[in-house]
Amino acid sequence: MTIDVINLKQKFSLISEQWDPKIIAQLNDYQVKIAKIQGEFVWHSHPETDEVFLVVNGKLTIYLRDGDLHLEPGEMCVIPSGVEHKPAAEEECQILMVESAGTQNTGDAGGERTVEDTAWI
Amino acid sequence: MTIDVINLKQKFSLISEQWDPKIIAQLNDYQVKIAKIQGEFVWHSHPETDEVFLVVNGKLTIYLRDGDLHLEPGEMCVIPSGVEHKPAAEEECQILMVESAGTQNTGDAGGERTVEDTAWI
Repeated sequence: MTIDVINLKQKFSLISEQWDPKIIAQLNDYQVKIAKIQGEFVWHSHPETDEVFLVVNGKLTIYLRDGDLHLEPGEMCVIPSGVEHKPAAEEECQILMVESAGTQNTGDAGGERTVEDTAWI
Repeated sequence: MTIDVINLKQKFSLISEQWDPKIIAQLNDYQVKIAKIQGEFVWHSHPETDEVFLVVNGKLTIYLRDGDLHLEPGEMCVIPSGVEHKPAAEEECQILMVESAGTQNTGDAGGERTVEDTAWI
């Protein structure tokens, strides 16, 4: 059995598209994903899962209906299931997420920015 | 509803004891924990859950029965459920873990280094 050492910097170097999350690890029925983001995403929520955001590089804003979160590298938060949020970043930001396997990026909102089948990287 | 921004550096500053994991976040029935470690832990496995290790500071060795893993800051791995492992660090190392809520640090091995009720920090 081989267990991989996953280097975040190396994994981020493989990502060229913004807002295109990639899976880097799975634990049980949960997945660890990374993404490069810049600009504003769409308002959405995930009715079925809480979602961890950890900033690896850059600055992340998560807009909420009742207040915004501002995260810098080494900071994280948990967006509870069902809570509407809109991630955003003025400059490119590298984020790591943990959530249930199969969670779609746009959650209940759907639409053109949905990544139907998130790939491994 | 208030969602906390969790600063890893600040959370680590609150930990004084080595090998004493603390919970910093929960997503569904999973928890994110941090710990400061130095020296060698005990061989153990977690029959019920995979376990993510992410190195925040320092160097982590995870001894396995068929080869060892060496992780530096920004590197992570997933130890599958049931796989015997022994974390170790020559100098103090700061690690972040993700695993099922209620997972004990010594897994199936038990013994004096078991933390019965992991606390939040």
